[in-house]
Amino acid sequence: MPSDLEKAMESMIMVFHKYASKEGDNNSLSRRELKDLMENELSGFLMSQKDPATVDKIMKDLDTNGDGQVSFEEFVSLVVGLSIACEQCYQMHLKKTGARK
Amino acid sequence: MPSDLEKAMESMIMVFHKYASKEGDNNSLSRRELKDLMENELSGFLMSQKDPATVDKIMKDLDTNGDGQVSFEEFVSLVVGLSIACEQCYQMHLKKTGARK
Repeated sequence: MPSDLEKAMESMIMVFHKYASKEGDNNSLSRRELKDLMENELSGFLMSQKDPATVDKIMKDLDTNGDGQVSFEEFVSLVVGLSIACEQCYQMHLKKTGARK
Repeated sequence: MPSDLEKAMESMIMVFHKYASKEGDNNSLSRRELKDLMENELSGFLMSQKDPATVDKIMKDLDTNGDGQVSFEEFVSLVVGLSIACEQCYQMHLKKTGARK
């Protein structure tokens, strides 16, 4: 029985491949695949992703080797960035509510 | 209703804080907290973590600022490293089984 953390890692891999396999190279996300992924899987986090320029900006930020495709390694840096931002909000929430030891 | 990817990010944050809140600073993992986390949440991935030297090695690798504590930012680099390793295995599996478009 995998732990929640192991399931989280599995989810990142499966979500990436679900979209990466839609067109072209099965091991990387094209701009359209990244847009679909963000619209469907990150709508709660990225409220402004319906602006086409946002996807382009994120695509440019993630595509560190500049090949116009987002690899799994590049994709996880998006997930990490969002997780760190969320965790900082969570820390602030803990401070405000005093739910600390 | 959060997506699988959003739930994955939530899991990373909640697992980190579950262990970080056990002793000392609630926003970072001590060596003992990291060891507990790895034994309970990553047993399927890190088969050799029962060797005390493995925890020390991972602790040293993760603790990039050398304060003897692992912050959330440092913790996610472990999760990312494991996820990238798993994803490479998954790609090899896809190649072998020919389960590609």
